[in-house]
Order: sequence, then structure tokens, then C-alpha cells
Amino acid sequence: MSEVIATYLIHDPSHNLAKKAEGIALGLTIGSWTDLPQLEQEQLKKHKGQVISIEELPKSESVNHYLGKDVTRGILKIGYPSANFSGDLPAILTTVFGKLSLDGEIRLVDLEFSDEVKENFPGPKYGLQGIREKLGVYNRPLVMSIFKGVIGRDLTYLKEQLKEQALGGVDIVKDDEILFENPLTPFEQRIVAGKQVLEEVFAETGHRTLYAVNISGRTFELKDKARKAVELGADLLLFNVFAYGLDVLQSLAEDPEITIPIMAHPAVSGTVTPSEFYGITNQLLLGKLLRYAGADLVLFPSPYGSVALDRDVTLGIAEELTKLDDQFKTAFPVPSAGIHPGLVPLLIQDFGNDSIINAGGGVHGHPDGAVGGGMAFRAAVDAVLAGKTLKEAAEDNENLGKAISLWGVVEVKS
Amino acid sequence: MSEVIATYLIHDPSHNLAKKAEGIALGLTIGSWTDLPQLEQEQLKKHKGQVISIEELPKSESVNHYLGKDVTRGILKIGYPSANFSGDLPAILTTVFGKLSLDGEIRLVDLEFSDEVKENFPGPKYGLQGIREKLGVYNRPLVMSIFKGVIGRDLTYLKEQLKEQALGGVDIVKDDEILFENPLTPFEQRIVAGKQVLEEVFAETGHRTLYAVNISGRTFELKDKARKAVELGADLLLFNVFAYGLDVLQSLAEDPEITIPIMAHPAVSGTVTPSEFYGITNQLLLGKLLRYAGADLVLFPSPYGSVALDRDVTLGIAEELTKLDDQFKTAFPVPSAGIHPGLVPLLIQDFGNDSIINAGGGVHGHPDGAVGGGMAFRAAVDAVLAGKTLKEAAEDNENLGKAISLWGVVEVKS
Ligand SMILES: [Mg+2]
Ligand SMILES: [Mg+2]
Repeated sequence: MSEVIATYLIHDPSHNLAKKAEGIALGLTIGSWTDLPQLEQEQLKKHKGQVISIEELPKSESVNHYLGKDVTRGILKIGYPSANFSGDLPAILTTVFGKLSLDGEIRLVDLEFSDEVKENFPGPKYGLQGIREKLGVYNRPLVMSIFKGVIGRDLTYLKEQLKEQALGGVDIVKDDEILFENPLTPFEQRIVAGKQVLEEVFAETGHRTLYAVNISGRTFELKDKARKAVELGADLLLFNVFAYGLDVLQSLAEDPEITIPIMAHPAVSGTVTPSEFYGITNQLLLGKLLRYAGADLVLFPSPYGSVALDRDVTLGIAEELTKLDDQFKTAFPVPSAGIHPGLVPLLIQDFGNDSIINAGGGVHGHPDGAVGGGMAFRAAVDAVLAGKTLKEAAEDNENLGKAISLWGVVEVKS
Repeated sequence: MSEVIATYLIHDPSHNLAKKAEGIALGLTIGSWTDLPQLEQEQLKKHKGQVISIEELPKSESVNHYLGKDVTRGILKIGYPSANFSGDLPAILTTVFGKLSLDGEIRLVDLEFSDEVKENFPGPKYGLQGIREKLGVYNRPLVMSIFKGVIGRDLTYLKEQLKEQALGGVDIVKDDEILFENPLTPFEQRIVAGKQVLEEVFAETGHRTLYAVNISGRTFELKDKARKAVELGADLLLFNVFAYGLDVLQSLAEDPEITIPIMAHPAVSGTVTPSEFYGITNQLLLGKLLRYAGADLVLFPSPYGSVALDRDVTLGIAEELTKLDDQFKTAFPVPSAGIHPGLVPLLIQDFGNDSIINAGGGVHGHPDGAVGGGMAFRAAVDAVLAGKTLKEAAEDNENLGKAISLWGVVEVKS
């Protein structure tokens, strides 16, 4: 059957999960059932929501105490026939978690799309392999760095910073997500100037760095801006998808003229994901839905920094982005924040080769600046792949040595 | 100074609100300050975020117990210079609550826009008075009803339901927000058929009812659809703004060819608003921001039903929609869910004349169907305005009598 199955975590003060589930399945589809004449039941059958499963969870004293009421916690799976909605995410989200998102302590845990529904989504245009092909790098995690302190700075400043980062050997440099259209470093000029810097570094060193430029502004102008970016030779687009909407990302990803990969930033997603009681899980929102909608790379908070997610959650996001799927390419997981070279062994153990190691302060804060910082990360990656400890590798690599002196090494149990 | 001032509720495990505030003000703007050379400080001064105020709140045992850590609760106000962002909501939200939304237990309570920043927003095109003028109704709350059980039904069924509701004397009938483009009741045909029905009722009774049609589908097709709706004579658009994005609403509201009011539905907003620790307040999201972005009418959960908001919160939303503002028209508050005729005295006491009384079950569930239900609401409104109790009025009004026999009357302290 063509449908979307939603999994909810609910906290039911009436202690009747079966009734709650049936209420959702009917209330969000045809409204009523048992009181309908036989003829109408026949007519409406294919539109009726179905309770797929009901699982009662153990009581949580802490939850009851906090909510100030006794609730039955449960996991409900409800199937919504695709006959009820158009094949776009706004319609699907409104169906499965529109009014229901307002109905007490309820959290959307997962959505499963039947193949037919999935056909409405593009998935990544380039995906993980496509990014690797752009770089010609196949056998190691990529290394990425972030512009730092660019608000109020001019193009000369940005060019210097970009050059340093590229000389450090990073694979991708991304804009700060809070750099918008501005007179000092306009979008189009950033693309052109960035391209020039990166070509110079390539000519000088043979190393290819890509630049992800932040596409921003009004929704209905984004396609034209993105096409212009492509025309000017932009490598990648950075996009604050949650400040816009998942369907906007999808439209950019689907546009045949926007022939470059899209990197999704998690800004604003913390309004939706962190509560135990409400909202949408990170795995669904930052993992599955961003991939379906067409993100080629997805940033999310790493489990290591001060702005952190639980390790299991980050692994769940990465799994959603990289698991095999007949219909969609895989996307690059980019665990971010709190990353320094000493964390590379742990990052590779947790996220594997098919991930991107992304740092801001861990690159720019290196005693020898972004050049040293980038090189330290690259050396750390090489060390791990060669089966060496960072301390061993640091004996022959000053950049790495300085980095681990400053930030230390996080030991990994093998 | 042209800026946006954000108010946050934070829960700080490091018990240093001043440091936290300074970290936000710098971290989300120029990055660093004290270590900058004098010359650069001059250059960056106008981009520097400012700590406006810090207020420590009393400790909450319940919060500490639930979080499993001791936190200092506080209200921080931070000013962000508008030099740092373009004048669109995606840029503003990404600046003030992009990365920060991911940073622990932090909630965005309010945003204050300087006049210059406000100029980027349209506000309601029609607003409360414009809707009243369309209806010629100035001295009472409006009455609205909702289609019921329309999934899987055909146009004949919808037309009959619309006719019943209009004959009941309601001012506005809105689509179910989960009715999307579908072969049985296509968007354009709903508009045309609805118009025909409502013209017939007007010819027969002299009563004018408006129909709000749900505009849905892919983001980049919405403008064309809305223009087509206008061309076909649609009265109002219903829009699930939170399944799209605030900026999409703004673009529809700004479009000079979309010459009809927009009713914003709160579907999906429960992913963002309900937590004490995270997300965005209802007053800001459903109140201020929807009004700035151009909603003419805003639905939100009433404080009376099973899907309910706290009364204070609903009054806060209504206040944001209706308070005087030099730059923006007022918008109609539409407290919804759990509304029956017996609640009308309380609704008018709580939300005043300038609100819309909106019911689904409270209209259709009347013993005499939607005709009786609509008339019961209208009679209840007339009774309150005439200074009568519903019981007094019910003596001369059978529709109201049947309604309060079924649902009762909620007494109001005067
Ligand atoms: Mg940043
Ligand atoms: Mg509904």
C-alpha cells in the first residue's frame, strides 16, 4: 500500500494507548468510521488511517514528576494512505504532525515512506560519491574548515583566510552560516574571489579545495541566486534549510540548472529537535528528511563539543544519511563543533571513512594558524589510516605535534 | 540604532549569566573583541552584538530535578545590529537563534525589531478591519466554521456541507487544513463551486459567507496557485505556514497580485512552541512573527479544549495580533478547538469583540446539524452583546437552547 507510516512517542494521561492511536488514525484522515453507513465505509476505506502497532513503554518517574501527572508512555505507529496527500513534504508533515504536534506531549520519532511516496523526492544530486569525484579523494574522510569572524570584514580579509585554509590542505571551506548578503563581501563577489584564490592555490600546490558559499535572502529569489552562483563557478551551496523549509531545499536540489551540491546547515533546527516530549527527532529531521529532500552534505552537532548531541543520536543521523537505499544516493555526514586534530581517531572510529571532519577553532586556533591547523588535521587522518597513534605520527609532523600539545589526544579503545 | 533585540530564557549550568550573555553577543556577531587591535575594533564596532540586560530568575527545583543538573535560570536580552543581516526572517532567525538554538536549554522568548528593520515586513494586507469591510460586519466577533470529514469525499458532498454552514449564518468557512490537491475536490474546482454555493445562499438569505481555501503543494508553485485562486474569485487563502516557512507567507502577503486575505494555520507549530526549555514562544511565533509576515487571520489552540494552550499564552498571542502598531495593521485572532456555543460568553470576555469564534464539532455536532449549529453560535453572540445570559436568550431561540442542552454553558464572572 502506498502510505507514510509515522512513529510517535506519546505520553498519555488517559492511559489508553489503543484509544489514542485509533483517535489519531481516524482524526487525521477520514474523521469517523463506525457510525458511517456501509456504502460510505466502502468509499472511504482507502483513505482510512491504520494503527500499525502500539507499544507500551516502562513508566518514567522522572517524566511523571516533571509533567506533574501520571502518563502512559508509548510508541504508536500509524499508517496514512498517500491517497490523502499530495507528494510534497508540507502536505505530509501537515497530515502526520500538523494539528497533532499541538496535542500534548507527543514527539514524531520517524516516518517511513513507501517506495511510491519516495518517488516524489530527489535525494542527493551528487551525494557522497559525487563529492568524492569532484575532489578525486576516495579513501579517507574529507577535512573541512569554516571561515571565522567574517562579519564586518572585507573581501581582502576573506580571501586571505580562504587561502590559509586551502594551503592547510582542507578539502572544503564553508562560509559562516551567519554571513548574509552584505556590501563588504557580496555573494557573487565571494564566489568569484573565492574561485580565484582556490585556483591559485591549486596551481601552486596541486591541492584542490572547494568553497561552499552561503545562499541566503528571500525564498523566491533563491533559485535565481543559485543559478547565478553556478554560472559564476561556485563549487557548493551552503543552505540554512531550517530557516526556510524542507520543501525549499528540495526545490533547489531538483532544479536541473543548479548543478552543484548542497550542504545543509542545522541552524534553527534546535527549535524542533531537543525536547524529549515534543518536536521531531534529529535522525528523522537532519538525517532522513534532509537526504530525501536532496542535501548532499549535512552538518550536525558532534557528540564531542560544548554544543553537543548524544553520541547515539549523531550515529543515528549518520546512519540515515549513509545507509543503502535503492532510490537515493548517500549523503556526507559532517559532525561539527568542538573538533580538534586530537579527536580524529575517535571521529573515524565513530563515523568511519565516509564522513567529513569539520573544524573552525580547531583549524584557526592552531599555533601556526589555519595552514598549520589544516595540515595537522590531514596528518591526523593519515596517521589513523596508517594504523599509527597520533603521538607516533606527531614525531614526524610538527603541525600535528603542536596541535596535540595544545588540544591533547582523545584515546580510542580498539 | 537599527537592530533586532532577542530575549532568551536560558538555563545555565555554569551559573555565569554575564559570561553566557557576552558569549552570545560576540559569538553570533563578530566572534571576538578584547583581543582585537584598536583599528579593527573601530571597524567592527557597528557589527558588535550588545548585551542589553541580564535578569536572574529564581531557582526551580522541578527544573533542576528534571534536567538532572543545577542550572541558573535567566532572561537575557541581546541586541544584534541590522548591519549583520539582510532584512529577511531567514537571516534574522539564523542570526539570533540559528546555532544558538542547538546550544543546550535555551528558548527564544521575544524579538523586538527597530522601526527600520520592521520596514522589511508587510504586515497584514487586509487585517482585521479589512476582513470586517469584506463582510460588512463591524460590531461583533465573527463566527467561523470548518469543513468536517472531507477526505475521500466529492465536490457534491463539500457543496452540501458548505451550504449548510452558510445557511447557519457563519461569516467564514475554512477548508480542513489536511485537504490537499486531490482528484475528487481539486483546488480550483473547490473555489468555483464554493463561490457558486455562497452566491446562492446570499441570493436566498442576504447573508454573506466567505470561504477560505487551503493553498498547498510545492513552495515555488504557491504564488501561481494563489494568483489563480484570486482570478477564480476565492475569498481567502488558508495556509499551513509552518509546513513551509515564515518567509513564504511573507512573499504571498507581499505579492500585489494576491489580493485576498491570508489565514495562517498553526499546523506543525507544535514542533517548536510547547517546551519550557527549547523552541520559540507562541506569542512570538504565532503572534508577532505571523503578523509581521502578513497573516490577516491567525488560528491558534484555544485555552478551552482538549488540544489547549494556557489561557495567558492565548491572550498573549491575541495581544500581539491586535495591539496598535504604527507600521502594521492588526490581525484577527482565531482561538480554535473545543469551541461550542456555551463558551461564547467566555470567548468574548477573554478575546473581546475583535476576534473570531471558530468551531468544527460545535457547529456540525448540533442536533439540527450545521444550520442549527451556526445559528446557535450567532444567537449566542447576539445574546452576549445584548447583555443577556445564554439561558435567557435560549428561551426565544431553539437552536441555542438545543446547543446549551447538549454542551452546557460556561458561566462567566462579570
Ligand atoms: Mg558559524
Ligand atoms: Mg482539521
